[in-house]
Amino acid sequence: MPMPREFHDIAKRVNNWGRWGPDDELGTLNLITDEVVRAAAATVRSGYRVPLALPLRQDGVQTGAIPGRVNPLHTMVAINRELFGPGTVATSDDAVTMGLQAATHWDGLAHVSHSGTLYNGRPSSTVTAHGGAAFTGFEKIPHLVSRGVLLDVARARGAERLPGGHAVGPEDLAAAERLAGTRVRTGDVVLVRTGQIRLCLAGEREAYAHPSPGLSLRAPEWFHERDVAAVANDTLTFEIFPPETDGLWLPVHALDLVEMGMPQGQNWNLEALSAACAREERYAFLLTATPEPFAGATGAPVAPVAVL
Amino acid sequence: MPMPREFHDIAKRVNNWGRWGPDDELGTLNLITDEVVRAAAATVRSGYRVPLALPLRQDGVQTGAIPGRVNPLHTMVAINRELFGPGTVATSDDAVTMGLQAATHWDGLAHVSHSGTLYNGRPSSTVTAHGGAAFTGFEKIPHLVSRGVLLDVARARGAERLPGGHAVGPEDLAAAERLAGTRVRTGDVVLVRTGQIRLCLAGEREAYAHPSPGLSLRAPEWFHERDVAAVANDTLTFEIFPPETDGLWLPVHALDLVEMGMPQGQNWNLEALSAACAREERYAFLLTATPEPFAGATGAPVAPVAVL
Amino acid sequence: MPMPREFHDIAKRVNNWGRWGPDDELGTLNLITDEVVRAAAATVRSGYRVPLALPLRQDGVQTGAIPGRVNPLHTMVAINRELFGPGTVATSDDAVTMGLQAATHWDGLAHVSHSGTLYNGRPSSTVTAHGGAAFTGFEKIPHLVSRGVLLDVARARGAERLPGGHAVGPEDLAAAERLAGTRVRTGDVVLVRTGQIRLCLAGEREAYAHPSPGLSLRAPEWFHERDVAAVANDTLTFEIFPPETDGLWLPVHALDLVEMGMPQGQNWNLEALSAACAREERYAFLLTATPEPFAGATGAPVAPVAVL
Amino acid sequence: MPMPREFHDIAKRVNNWGRWGPDDELGTLNLITDEVVRAAAATVRSGYRVPLALPLRQDGVQTGAIPGRVNPLHTMVAINRELFGPGTVATSDDAVTMGLQAATHWDGLAHVSHSGTLYNGRPSSTVTAHGGAAFTGFEKIPHLVSRGVLLDVARARGAERLPGGHAVGPEDLAAAERLAGTRVRTGDVVLVRTGQIRLCLAGEREAYAHPSPGLSLRAPEWFHERDVAAVANDTLTFEIFPPETDGLWLPVHALDLVEMGMPQGQNWNLEALSAACAREERYAFLLTATPEPFAGATGAPVAPVAVL
Repeated sequence: MPMPREFHDIAKRVNNWGRWGPDDELGTLNLITDEVVRAAAATVRSGYRVPLALPLRQDGVQTGAIPGRVNPLHTMVAINRELFGPGTVATSDDAVTMGLQAATHWDGLAHVSHSGTLYNGRPSSTVTAHGGAAFTGFEKIPHLVSRGVLLDVARARGAERLPGGHAVGPEDLAAAERLAGTRVRTGDVVLVRTGQIRLCLAGEREAYAHPSPGLSLRAPEWFHERDVAAVANDTLTFEIFPPETDGLWLPVHALDLVEMGMPQGQNWNLEALSAACAREERYAFLLTATPEPFAGATGAPVAPVAVL
Repeated sequence: MPMPREFHDIAKRVNNWGRWGPDDELGTLNLITDEVVRAAAATVRSGYRVPLALPLRQDGVQTGAIPGRVNPLHTMVAINRELFGPGTVATSDDAVTMGLQAATHWDGLAHVSHSGTLYNGRPSSTVTAHGGAAFTGFEKIPHLVSRGVLLDVARARGAERLPGGHAVGPEDLAAAERLAGTRVRTGDVVLVRTGQIRLCLAGEREAYAHPSPGLSLRAPEWFHERDVAAVANDTLTFEIFPPETDGLWLPVHALDLVEMGMPQGQNWNLEALSAACAREERYAFLLTATPEPFAGATGAPVAPVAVL
Repeated sequence: MPMPREFHDIAKRVNNWGRWGPDDELGTLNLITDEVVRAAAATVRSGYRVPLALPLRQDGVQTGAIPGRVNPLHTMVAINRELFGPGTVATSDDAVTMGLQAATHWDGLAHVSHSGTLYNGRPSSTVTAHGGAAFTGFEKIPHLVSRGVLLDVARARGAERLPGGHAVGPEDLAAAERLAGTRVRTGDVVLVRTGQIRLCLAGEREAYAHPSPGLSLRAPEWFHERDVAAVANDTLTFEIFPPETDGLWLPVHALDLVEMGMPQGQNWNLEALSAACAREERYAFLLTATPEPFAGATGAPVAPVAVL
Repeated sequence: MPMPREFHDIAKRVNNWGRWGPDDELGTLNLITDEVVRAAAATVRSGYRVPLALPLRQDGVQTGAIPGRVNPLHTMVAINRELFGPGTVATSDDAVTMGLQAATHWDGLAHVSHSGTLYNGRPSSTVTAHGGAAFTGFEKIPHLVSRGVLLDVARARGAERLPGGHAVGPEDLAAAERLAGTRVRTGDVVLVRTGQIRLCLAGEREAYAHPSPGLSLRAPEWFHERDVAAVANDTLTFEIFPPETDGLWLPVHALDLVEMGMPQGQNWNLEALSAACAREERYAFLLTATPEPFAGATGAPVAPVAVL
């Protein structure tokens, strides 16, 4: 099924191809300037830090429904090994196998393509088995630190979590922004809380996967207008599941990653942050969220921290 | 060979067991208080960010000399897969296998033991194959953000890089501190630059491995006096190789990790940071260095960023 | 809970420690002599071959209930890569991560220990994280070819598959031997069919896992009397699940592997073999079942074939 | 560079496309009939078994020169774990990550393509990241047992090993066949010994890789005339390295796998077999060489055994 007219209309309005030159591989991360970061550091008041990553465990969020996206298999390759003889210092060492998008992660710009095309008009054939993404791999993102803003949609609606299928649209974002008491601005990283991850934290992995609330097809335009650098949320796939428009799968991925060149975060645990922001009555903070720099990767694990 | 008298004397002086209670698993990271972080954020002036991680590649720093510590094997599990039928949004997805200490990483407190004992007096038998480290695994370190101070020992000595075998002792640290123009204080994360990683960046992996400069047996006491939270450097093993004292292997690991409960960072690329600090004439900054929260892990990859 | 008296009585009777010398690492595989193999080859009449392995897939038999025993994750590391320039021969290449006992496999003698002891009285501490099993690893089993005998217990009882919890004891083995029309003898590899794997083949992985029929605590003595070289069956864990004796877990593992030094096979697909043997009215054949020689491994995948 | 005229002439003569129907995925393995296997079993005289696989170790044959083809990383996921409480039977369990062609293996028919085409005229695009080879994956090869014939080219030439660069052509094969004293016939699996693996066994991995003797561009036609089922040898890449014809890389792969549909074996240790055949003065035997049935795989590990 080709993408519908509505999608193409929005795509045209949010498209950033060429905006930072034909060779650009950073997309909206270009919006995080030194000035933005200076201002972000200035938001720190209490110094209180809130971690946003799920622990990396074999009983993680993946259920097997997405082939190849395996939970971390952590194994020991040495345990208290006296490398240099009996009585010497003993070392333990570990290895891991995991899907790069298995847990708390960033989607890279090469994670999706549509109509054979990636961000900035590059052909999707530039993603290959032996090298991964020739463009926009995670070795190209050296740092990701900026002002973070929590848009606590669930709290703004007075809900612990949004119902499955709920489409987070501009009106939700605006309401959450009013609650936040700060205007989302250029270079911000926006964290959209649905509360869905509470299911995961309660051990209900299947229910966490679906039905799920997520960002509406109408959300990217709102982000584009504010010129945000990146958006993360607390769901498995970022999007509404089952989809908002029947048969239209992953439209927000296509708009964010391909058209706008904007990274997306998934499986971010925003529960403690929600509590902290409500308590301190402020929803803007310094966010550190640099992904692991896997060369050629289309997604990457991240251990984000909000510094309030 | 048992540890020599000199080691035990130092061990007694730097030991932190029980300092934060018998159940503590954080060690010197306890020293990073909200207040420390507030002050760290206040060091940001330019907003310029310097990444300190090496890219994660199969041709990474490991040469095979340390069994099981394998360079990242990045593979694609899907490439432009039209999951929902022809013409729909196509997704790419990746997986990785790697040694957790293969690249830029933190050593966790369970990485080494001596005399059958880990930090805080726990038996080394609490590290097992099926669960990894029962105590001080990386799921216990939710965040690692603090003031960073670059102690540029190579620059202080007027060298591009220290010679192989050079022992970085208190006098080197003091000289670099004078160059830095700031006093190292409680909760700081200290980055000790030897310049050794220039060999790795030049593709000389064997030469990078050894001979190598590193931290002297006499360094931990200096760090203990200043009550720093963590120390990282730009070498493969953190320590001098071949060792400073004949037959005494990994003594700094034993002092830092077991006695002090202080995480160590290795394979940190401090070259760009050295240039930036020299240019801006200041060596203190906000450091974000939260490790990936692998449950039970004794080491963990990290993508640190210095924010100047 | 210590092992009960009944276990120890049987253990004493079936114990093979020292039988092939104090340094032996092969156990009952010593019983497969050249003569046995010559006779095995002479059983071939039709030349018809029946494969006994399950395909290795990510949606394999493991459900996640056994931590670390992960189904095969097959990934491509190159796809039609024109290594030597455009128009040259293109190569594809793959990698895999898997639990060595995830699918059709042999348990090695080091797979279990009891009372701190492995086969031939070696301490269980000889299994380590950095080297695996110092003794009886799979690099020590260069070949495994012998006469195979199908003991089709399900067919002998007129059942498609035995009910969950059914304990296959000496009387079942004797009945199946009568059906087979051949006496089980020294060096044979015995394949015990319960039919349980039909559940797995039907996609019912949870039901396959439990409740499961399996070999009774009373079976090893029967195998010991016949001096068989190895035994495999068509269940997930070889044993009855939940266990035959309340609270006594894996007793047959302890008897077979530790006391007798006899390898066990699990997840063998015996359905086609059952049909072929019934059709040809003979249940003895040449069996080729050499495990992959993973050094230090305590289990290993195998692709067994019966040649009728 | 396109393939030269000489290649295309040979390709035309050896091509088997359509020979076993348009849907065939087995290629020359179709030649192994029940009758062939019956005759193979009849070759067994002494019952002596010779293993042909290298042990699977992290210090295996791969040097890192072929990206992604990693040596086996064997790790323990449990060591003497008392799953059901103190004093109960303890289990050890392992996992592995490896390149499927890292050690002793079969190349599958989908391992190479040329001119965008695989065996039987299928498009090379049928190999994908999420499913591997849609056709001729190893789950399609349920068994591989046949008569094996050792063509001991090195011995026939009176050499311990052939010199690097030596092209094993029809004249070498014919001489070795005379030494073997048996005529290679339909359905045979031919093992071509160059002696090159002696370098690997001596720990000289780089020298093993190149320069290497291998099969000449002129060899496939000889195999085609005899209608053999498969060919394996004792080199890293099967072919001459550097190549026989300047700039013509992997021509034998293209002829064997794509044109003939004939699997190739590499890294087979034929040293002990050479000694045994010379001693027994016969070079034909029962060969069991069923690959591990990895679904969608383009190569697969195998633990072959010759039964004399």
